[in-house]
Amino acid sequence: MKITILKGDIIYHESPAKLTAIANGYVIAEKGIVKGVYSALPSEYADVSQNSDIDFLDYTGKLIIPGMTDLHVHAPQYTFRGIGMDQELLTWLDQYTFPEEAKYSDLSYAKRAYRYFTEDLRRGFTTRAVIFATLHKEATIELMDQLEDTGLITYAGKVNMDRNSNPELQEESPNASITATKEWISEIAGKYKRTAPILTPRFIPSCSNELMKQLGRLSKDTGLRIQSHLSENQSEIAWVRELVPQADCYANAYEIFDAIGSEKLPAVMAHCVYSDKREMEILKNHGTFIAHCPSSNMNLTSGIAPVRKFLDAGIPVGLGTDVAAGSSMNMLQTILLTIQASKMYYRLVDQSVKPLTFEEAFYLATEGGGSYFGKVGSFKEGYEFDALVLDDSTMYSMRPFTLRERMERACYNDADVRILAKYVRGTQVYQK
Amino acid sequence: MKITILKGDIIYHESPAKLTAIANGYVIAEKGIVKGVYSALPSEYADVSQNSDIDFLDYTGKLIIPGMTDLHVHAPQYTFRGIGMDQELLTWLDQYTFPEEAKYSDLSYAKRAYRYFTEDLRRGFTTRAVIFATLHKEATIELMDQLEDTGLITYAGKVNMDRNSNPELQEESPNASITATKEWISEIAGKYKRTAPILTPRFIPSCSNELMKQLGRLSKDTGLRIQSHLSENQSEIAWVRELVPQADCYANAYEIFDAIGSEKLPAVMAHCVYSDKREMEILKNHGTFIAHCPSSNMNLTSGIAPVRKFLDAGIPVGLGTDVAAGSSMNMLQTILLTIQASKMYYRLVDQSVKPLTFEEAFYLATEGGGSYFGKVGSFKEGYEFDALVLDDSTMYSMRPFTLRERMERACYNDADVRILAKYVRGTQVYQK
Repeated sequence: MKITILKGDIIYHESPAKLTAIANGYVIAEKGIVKGVYSALPSEYADVSQNSDIDFLDYTGKLIIPGMTDLHVHAPQYTFRGIGMDQELLTWLDQYTFPEEAKYSDLSYAKRAYRYFTEDLRRGFTTRAVIFATLHKEATIELMDQLEDTGLITYAGKVNMDRNSNPELQEESPNASITATKEWISEIAGKYKRTAPILTPRFIPSCSNELMKQLGRLSKDTGLRIQSHLSENQSEIAWVRELVPQADCYANAYEIFDAIGSEKLPAVMAHCVYSDKREMEILKNHGTFIAHCPSSNMNLTSGIAPVRKFLDAGIPVGLGTDVAAGSSMNMLQTILLTIQASKMYYRLVDQSVKPLTFEEAFYLATEGGGSYFGKVGSFKEGYEFDALVLDDSTMYSMRPFTLRERMERACYNDADVRILAKYVRGTQVYQK
Repeated sequence: MKITILKGDIIYHESPAKLTAIANGYVIAEKGIVKGVYSALPSEYADVSQNSDIDFLDYTGKLIIPGMTDLHVHAPQYTFRGIGMDQELLTWLDQYTFPEEAKYSDLSYAKRAYRYFTEDLRRGFTTRAVIFATLHKEATIELMDQLEDTGLITYAGKVNMDRNSNPELQEESPNASITATKEWISEIAGKYKRTAPILTPRFIPSCSNELMKQLGRLSKDTGLRIQSHLSENQSEIAWVRELVPQADCYANAYEIFDAIGSEKLPAVMAHCVYSDKREMEILKNHGTFIAHCPSSNMNLTSGIAPVRKFLDAGIPVGLGTDVAAGSSMNMLQTILLTIQASKMYYRLVDQSVKPLTFEEAFYLATEGGGSYFGKVGSFKEGYEFDALVLDDSTMYSMRPFTLRERMERACYNDADVRILAKYVRGTQVYQK
């Protein structure tokens, strides 16, 4: 029975609003599942040096925190992140994204480009991710092969899109799109331990009614989840209103086609910048996870999503870096941007919606998004053991800081933090 | 006659809205002043290898850009950056800033802490800065000694504050404050080549009417400039209204005491988040430079300053990191935050105020703030030669990018950029 014990300065959530911090403590996992966090090593584990079943890692003085989940990121966009950022969503897609994604019809191109993405993902703060590929079946399988090798646990999706793109990046018909999707699913069946397929209609403007309907059915038939985009940008929303006039809101357009998942098969919807009460009701009814993407929403001038309203309504929320509209896959930076965006929403839009605290934003990055994968994102007993060991010692200071202060500083100064080790479900997947 | 020639991929402004990019070009400086930028090496410099007067540096493939000016930063706050960020301005000052600054009465503490600040400033993107110290004379001289050693060109100010702080961080009377200020000025007279004193009333709430008046007079008598804070936070503004009821706005409070500078002796006013037409008029009349501090303004939930309105009104604007309310001294990150903030102002506050373009934000970081120091922040002929050589080669890409795209990417992904060399007024002050 494999046991992992990490010693160090441990921070995690017991509840969304409260961080638990144990200086110089021990987090113990058995077979990849957290046993508990302790101030002193329990006597049953006292023989760490003699017991070959125990991996004991002494990270005294280092921060040990739960792994982080990137709930929305586009793998094929990684290599052009940081350009075209004076555009808004729809022109940015046309001018930058679609032409780039079209290149993934070339498998050797995909192989090289995805290597950059997966290698940086492996070395970053992310332990779990929900990922868009492109519409290309072979390239998507290549991405999944590479993801499996990282040791991270991920969902990845071949994109579906049969309208409103350009000829180089569009499937010929709903049936062609569904056929390719089914082939993709069947070719990877049983292939991976850590990498799961997820159905990925790009968004309503890219998918005909017929395609959306068939994807909804396919989700039910296969038990596969769905990820997509929702209410990101005002022009996009107006367009959806034209495209699906029978829907009373954008989320309802997905609902009409039965393509928005369920409590049992929850979908991820990225953005929800303009989701109102009616839309929130739909998301709640379907157990949908919202991927909040503050970097992207600022970069594309989309706006700011009212995250606290989602939390108050009991809708699950996690964070997404949304590269390449978001410019970095850094999850610490995403925590900071989440806080900053919520402060600006409070200040500029609605002073009845209080800014997110540091604790709350940290929760969103860990357990908030992690819970899309089950009991993930905390060190509470029974949770899967995903962990990051961080060295924050290069950040100058003139006084001792509490663990909570050290963690806050790490998020506000991510450039000064080094990842020493990363564990996913009990297995070390990265070491500096 | 000392000549410096840098070869590489050169980017700079001819005008605020337009970047000039010369791939594989040459920027040439004589005695610290830019001669010009050339696509081919002019024949008069052809003998680079034989001429001992010429320093020829071949940075082929690297980005060469003008140095950047941090127009507002608090040196003593550097070592506690990134904590207490769930507070707004006035409580953050009371709980975090004032207790920390009080420690600078201990010169040995100041020596150690300022070493962290000056060393990171030297290694960063900043070539010029306008800096707050604390109210302590000795510690301020220590800071200036250290700044002089960095090779950067800076203004630094002993802070004046005689009310509304706590006993550990408050001068006893207007006269005590002025006396200490005069001693400070006299003790450093003629001491530095690159480091200049600047009068530094903290802000209206910290300075009695009498002190402000005397500082205004001192500025005129000594020819020293003034820096302070203006219209950062709504509670602060309301407080100023109570403290100086005869003023019709916050800027007018400085004006009444004749402590807001002039075209010839321009002041720096940090923030101006809530500066309206009337306040902008005052700033314009006095040639005031606005230090726009987007990181700080988001972190302390202050709001977003309408930078485009300032530019349209012809008010000079530069960027400030405002550490420790801003969390990093990184100027590339500050460019990104400037763009993001302007996009949110446009989207959430006033759609008649278009977001800043990348070109405009880059201009603010270079020539915008640089012009506080004269002809600084561009490679136009006659400008002082401040330059950064950047290695962006670790940023993965699948296609060649234009120089403009590479620079945009560098700002959106500052973690992936390395400074290879830094020049200030023709002298190399840093090399990796």
